[in-house]
Amino acid sequence: MDPVVVVSNRGPLSFRLDDDGNPLAVGAAGGLAGTLQPLLEGSGSTWISCSMSEADRTAAARGLMRGEGLRLLNVFPSPDVYRMAYDVISNATLWFCFHHLFDLSRRPRFDSRWREAWEGYRELNRQFARLVVEAAPEGSSVLVQDYHLLLTGRLIARERPDLRTVHFLHTPFCSPEILRVLPPDVAGELLSGMAGFGACGFHARRWESCFRQCWEDPELAAAAGSPPPPTFVAPIGPVPEAIQSEAASPACAQARRSLRQLVGDRRLIVRVDRVELSKNILRGCWAVEELLELHPDWRGRVVLLALAYPSREGLAEYLAYRSEVEHAVERINERWGQGDWQPIVLDVADDRARSLAALCEYDVLLVNPLRDGLNLVAKEGPLINATDGVLALSREAGAWPELREDAVGLNPFDVHGTAEALDAALRMEPPERRRRADALRQRVLSRRAADWLEDQLLAAGR
Amino acid sequence: MDPVVVVSNRGPLSFRLDDDGNPLAVGAAGGLAGTLQPLLEGSGSTWISCSMSEADRTAAARGLMRGEGLRLLNVFPSPDVYRMAYDVISNATLWFCFHHLFDLSRRPRFDSRWREAWEGYRELNRQFARLVVEAAPEGSSVLVQDYHLLLTGRLIARERPDLRTVHFLHTPFCSPEILRVLPPDVAGELLSGMAGFGACGFHARRWESCFRQCWEDPELAAAAGSPPPPTFVAPIGPVPEAIQSEAASPACAQARRSLRQLVGDRRLIVRVDRVELSKNILRGCWAVEELLELHPDWRGRVVLLALAYPSREGLAEYLAYRSEVEHAVERINERWGQGDWQPIVLDVADDRARSLAALCEYDVLLVNPLRDGLNLVAKEGPLINATDGVLALSREAGAWPELREDAVGLNPFDVHGTAEALDAALRMEPPERRRRADALRQRVLSRRAADWLEDQLLAAGR
Repeated sequence: MDPVVVVSNRGPLSFRLDDDGNPLAVGAAGGLAGTLQPLLEGSGSTWISCSMSEADRTAAARGLMRGEGLRLLNVFPSPDVYRMAYDVISNATLWFCFHHLFDLSRRPRFDSRWREAWEGYRELNRQFARLVVEAAPEGSSVLVQDYHLLLTGRLIARERPDLRTVHFLHTPFCSPEILRVLPPDVAGELLSGMAGFGACGFHARRWESCFRQCWEDPELAAAAGSPPPPTFVAPIGPVPEAIQSEAASPACAQARRSLRQLVGDRRLIVRVDRVELSKNILRGCWAVEELLELHPDWRGRVVLLALAYPSREGLAEYLAYRSEVEHAVERINERWGQGDWQPIVLDVADDRARSLAALCEYDVLLVNPLRDGLNLVAKEGPLINATDGVLALSREAGAWPELREDAVGLNPFDVHGTAEALDAALRMEPPERRRRADALRQRVLSRRAADWLEDQLLAAGR
Repeated sequence: MDPVVVVSNRGPLSFRLDDDGNPLAVGAAGGLAGTLQPLLEGSGSTWISCSMSEADRTAAARGLMRGEGLRLLNVFPSPDVYRMAYDVISNATLWFCFHHLFDLSRRPRFDSRWREAWEGYRELNRQFARLVVEAAPEGSSVLVQDYHLLLTGRLIARERPDLRTVHFLHTPFCSPEILRVLPPDVAGELLSGMAGFGACGFHARRWESCFRQCWEDPELAAAAGSPPPPTFVAPIGPVPEAIQSEAASPACAQARRSLRQLVGDRRLIVRVDRVELSKNILRGCWAVEELLELHPDWRGRVVLLALAYPSREGLAEYLAYRSEVEHAVERINERWGQGDWQPIVLDVADDRARSLAALCEYDVLLVNPLRDGLNLVAKEGPLINATDGVLALSREAGAWPELREDAVGLNPFDVHGTAEALDAALRMEPPERRRRADALRQRVLSRRAADWLEDQLLAAGR
């Protein structure tokens, strides 16, 4: 393999300080870094990421940022620059924009303070680009990951035309009608930044097509000031061996036993998400309520286990959403619960063994995001589920076109329709469940994380 | 002129009951009906609209629904059907959808109650279609107005193939990515309903293009089940004589004097809107605050007069928005006001003379909607303004392409950019102001309401 440089906000290693102030390593906590790490270990690749805490800085200073057969390098933005780039621009602006989450009559509010934050995003992108320019081996393929780093391609190309850069976006891309929400110079700089890569990749044809449509909007195209880059579609998949071995661990077996005790002989609907506005946890709860209302025979006989671990609690929107979810669950349980039965069990602990146990045990896996780059849970579930469980999947998830034939589809905004999809999934006959579960497993196994990585390298080589 | 049938939710005449329970006529209160009425009077056309109150019913029963050289007919839905069709579907669903106003992580919520309301919308459309089928003269052109009646075309065509139907949408159309928010059967029925007209018209190329793009989304196209109809673009304009004569009235002259007294020798920014989420009143206030912050020389020297008359107060979203606007104004005035100067004067009275007076007197007219079918105020203002005032206009208004060359453009989400646009407009030199004001007036005069009506008749004749 030619030299490869991976560039991402979060790296495979982060640190926390112990009681004596010494840095202790914490492994990649799932997510993209967790998927990439096993693919890159031992390859001699370079991985450039952001040092995000005092502990990371101390660890780097002491030479502890070392991977197995991997060269790990870090940028060290000031906490202020990082907060502006990561919280205000990446998470509160670009994430909201690409997922269509703005409540447009009120948010966003692009004022002078936001303009400062935008300068922070540009600065962080320059710091990343500078390190790539300095450290990338001659002729490397440079794989830049996700929406935190959209401006780096053009900056890198200017200094190092020998490098072959690719950007891969893990979120959806938005409609041009929503990209127009951004100030025109900002929308233009993002588009022209992406056009500075050798190629841009997406998880689904639909996001690629939204991206390309931006060049058909005359004002956006004028703001971009350059033609669109080559694009490609390369959905990610799991690393099957990694998740299967985790699912076979004693901790997971123990969690499965507790779970079966909790559920008893009731039917089990599972969801596993971050507490995230795009995941649509609220309407999932409303749909269970509608199910109980429309189909009284499910009362007392079905449980939604909602594993929802907190996320981005520095943003007010996320705290508010979490509290709305908690109130909805409380209200629904109060209205419908009887004896020891509560229709919804909400667990906000970040417990990996319990999440995997729930994926092994579900009768129905509810994946109902409003809009989602791919949704890896929709692939991991069928891979390790042991009960021929049914996948109820949003048509707005990037994974939909790959899995649609064997999933039960749903419109995530349609609470009534979601309730009917859950009912259909719960009532599905065993032979049909088995056929679909087998087919889903085969589909998932046929497209792994390694294939996705390979597609990026191919795109870089063009 | 061949026989013409106009079909709209609101007609030219409505009634209220006096103290003795007798119906008293109230003229068309601005809006579409107010624009159409002078064009149709004396033409012998038929105008079918909805009877919306007890007073209307009584008036119709007593034969009082009579126009000048116009045949007025009414449908009489039950109050329940009307509420579901008008409040829940037309205003809280379709309006929000077409204007991209949904706060998608929370709204819409398509549950069983919403499904009942959808049946109400279908029923009201059937009642309208039935009356058209019964009452339209042989071979008429039938001009159906706006989003309340999207399903009528197909229903009419089935029974009366002799009629030539046109639909005209006065709102924007949404991105296909947002139309997908609706339940698939509903999105499909709306699209196929519109495809049932002989042609569909829009105020701007952009809305036409959003509409046509829906047929490029494979799932929406499958749900529609029919090819798109012919489409056309025909921006509406004012009836110049009508508004000019209103502006010359004694009531308006009196209001202008009061206004000049209120403002003194300060510069005057004016906005005139319904209290409506799409009008972006909140960010208009924030932009004035940003202007005072960035350009201290305007402190004490500029006033925003925000004429915002209440609208749709039956919907919780509108009440909440109004109260947010009121709080923002209060906060900004408290922070910046000095002596007898308050930077923002908010007036929620529906006072036509005062609105016209403000349009006569503005130095800057702020029209900053998030998304707007056309925005007639942006045309009426330049027509009657007497002070070479500057138009600060949102790029997301349907009127933008017609007026852009002589307006100061703004991105409505960009509070910082809006403040800078206001500053540029306020500082513009008199010769440049005059040149632009003259050019805007000429543009507005070159495209009148009658041209818009003519374009619909041409489209019907195709």
